[in-house]
Amino acid sequence: MTTIHDVAKRANVSISTVSRVLNNSPLVTAEKRERVLEAIRELGYQPNALARGLIHRRTQTIGVLIPDVSNFFFAEVFRGMEDVAHARGWNVMICNTDGDPRRMLKYIEVLREKRVDGVIFTSEPVSEDYYRALLKLEVPVVLAATTSGYDFPSIKVNDEQASFEAANYLIEQGHRNLGMIAGSSHDPIAGVPRVAGFRRALQEAGIADIDRRIVHGDYRFESGKQATEELLGRFPEMTAIFAASDEMALGIISYAYERGIRVPEELSVVGFDNVKIAQMSNPPLTTVAQPLYQIGEKAADCLLDMITKTVEHKGLHYLKHQLIVRGTVKEIKQLTDERTLK
Amino acid sequence: MTTIHDVAKRANVSISTVSRVLNNSPLVTAEKRERVLEAIRELGYQPNALARGLIHRRTQTIGVLIPDVSNFFFAEVFRGMEDVAHARGWNVMICNTDGDPRRMLKYIEVLREKRVDGVIFTSEPVSEDYYRALLKLEVPVVLAATTSGYDFPSIKVNDEQASFEAANYLIEQGHRNLGMIAGSSHDPIAGVPRVAGFRRALQEAGIADIDRRIVHGDYRFESGKQATEELLGRFPEMTAIFAASDEMALGIISYAYERGIRVPEELSVVGFDNVKIAQMSNPPLTTVAQPLYQIGEKAADCLLDMITKTVEHKGLHYLKHQLIVRGTVKEIKQLTDERTLK
Repeated sequence: MTTIHDVAKRANVSISTVSRVLNNSPLVTAEKRERVLEAIRELGYQPNALARGLIHRRTQTIGVLIPDVSNFFFAEVFRGMEDVAHARGWNVMICNTDGDPRRMLKYIEVLREKRVDGVIFTSEPVSEDYYRALLKLEVPVVLAATTSGYDFPSIKVNDEQASFEAANYLIEQGHRNLGMIAGSSHDPIAGVPRVAGFRRALQEAGIADIDRRIVHGDYRFESGKQATEELLGRFPEMTAIFAASDEMALGIISYAYERGIRVPEELSVVGFDNVKIAQMSNPPLTTVAQPLYQIGEKAADCLLDMITKTVEHKGLHYLKHQLIVRGTVKEIKQLTDERTLK
Repeated sequence: MTTIHDVAKRANVSISTVSRVLNNSPLVTAEKRERVLEAIRELGYQPNALARGLIHRRTQTIGVLIPDVSNFFFAEVFRGMEDVAHARGWNVMICNTDGDPRRMLKYIEVLREKRVDGVIFTSEPVSEDYYRALLKLEVPVVLAATTSGYDFPSIKVNDEQASFEAANYLIEQGHRNLGMIAGSSHDPIAGVPRVAGFRRALQEAGIADIDRRIVHGDYRFESGKQATEELLGRFPEMTAIFAASDEMALGIISYAYERGIRVPEELSVVGFDNVKIAQMSNPPLTTVAQPLYQIGEKAADCLLDMITKTVEHKGLHYLKHQLIVRGTVKEIKQLTDERTLK
């Protein structure tokens, strides 16, 4: 096995110099750095994280990029990551990118400079700028609750299929006057595929006029309330709404409460995610559960495997979603039957 | 003004050596390190963050220690911190300590090793172990939503007074059969003072049997439900409950909903914190607002002032709490009057 001594000998520099290069110290001349990097490449030297930690007395730390720590979604995903990391003896640092490209690039730079050993990139689409910045980190990267056209392994649910099943469940419960509060139509992860699944379910059931049944929100509570107003304005006879996030679904319930519309007696609601607040609403929310904790666990496991070179990971890993039936959907088949009988 | 050159000259070492000492590099002998530190002390050299950043091409980063990122409370506090930090050109890294002393000490070590320029310590009591570890960081430390007997500046609300006002509000609304779901009796920040405020309000109102009116939870939703069951078991005639967190207050509402007890008609509820979910409940929750965002802002401002040596900060800063009246408290004076009239 190649050691740091071999690299130092080949590059004709001291071990300290190799160590400084590995740590991106500015105290090495460009010429020496090049020599060291070349020796590393030639010898195929792989400083494993543990060894690097020992040599440089560094703590073993991974960085997590999250668009919004105040979103209930990430709290659960993060908990899964952290439990795995701690169980395996690693630390986790979180950076909140605010969905802002400039902050994202700045934080990737911070992670590079703080020399984290690997990065989990969460939930956002990977732009070409991000991709280039992530590559420059020269550490393993795993995507959680998102995916990309690049070769980072990614862990997520099948959003199209999950959304299809949610809409289909409402249809099976007898609802044909149903609508959707979608996410952003520019969001290739949680926006577009969830609309596609909803659309497919309605098409298969022969329900027409699908476009007018879809209003877009921003996944947050307030936008759920506003979208409900718009949707019920267009379709006052609507009996069920599927929302692309639990927070928006809670917005529907809140709008209904304020207007004296009873849930689920007069309006059925299905959410998406199954975050903690889904069970805190009255009635508790029926929703499509993403295995948030498991997405976090799997992403961290995958990343640590790659850092410690124990297992290679590639491609897209789907984790199983699940419909959680609580108290916000009413079956209206009987009602339809009664109407038919009259 | 003393520069790094003066320090190098006095210690009779190279500038690189001073720089390595400032960066806690292991590549300096103990003897040289001592000489450099002595020269720094003698000359009163203060490497400011900007200069340190320039010398070492370091990003300007502060570290935030948070016990539980999945708690709604910290999401708001953190947002305040981050907005200020970004406006002033700084980055923020979060570490989730899980309220676990071993993780806390490990993360303080991570922050030391990653050479953050300052630390905000959030919400937990500062033990002697934590104090020693924080001192070893040799960077400014500010406490947010907590305080200590040590000389770190701290930003929080007056918990005793806020709790007193919440209980007093219920008493003013005619409630005398009231109880409290408190936090941990071992928690000197959000536990003990909030009980003290509740106790003071009831004593001043001449309400007896106070101990039996208090049940302890862990600030989370489930414990709120359980504590409500216990409290109503002891006092079936109870008309109002004050909870030391919004999540526990939502637990009360959920318990009541399941048992067919109407809120606020039959049971009034007041929470504490005013986190985002307080306005998502049905009816929306009346609660004591902590200025969470402002606590974060003020803590970050304070820390960055100290790092950049523009302003000195000391002692305890109280930020103003505020009772937010929404829909979960019913005035029962009229009811009492009617009863009296009969």
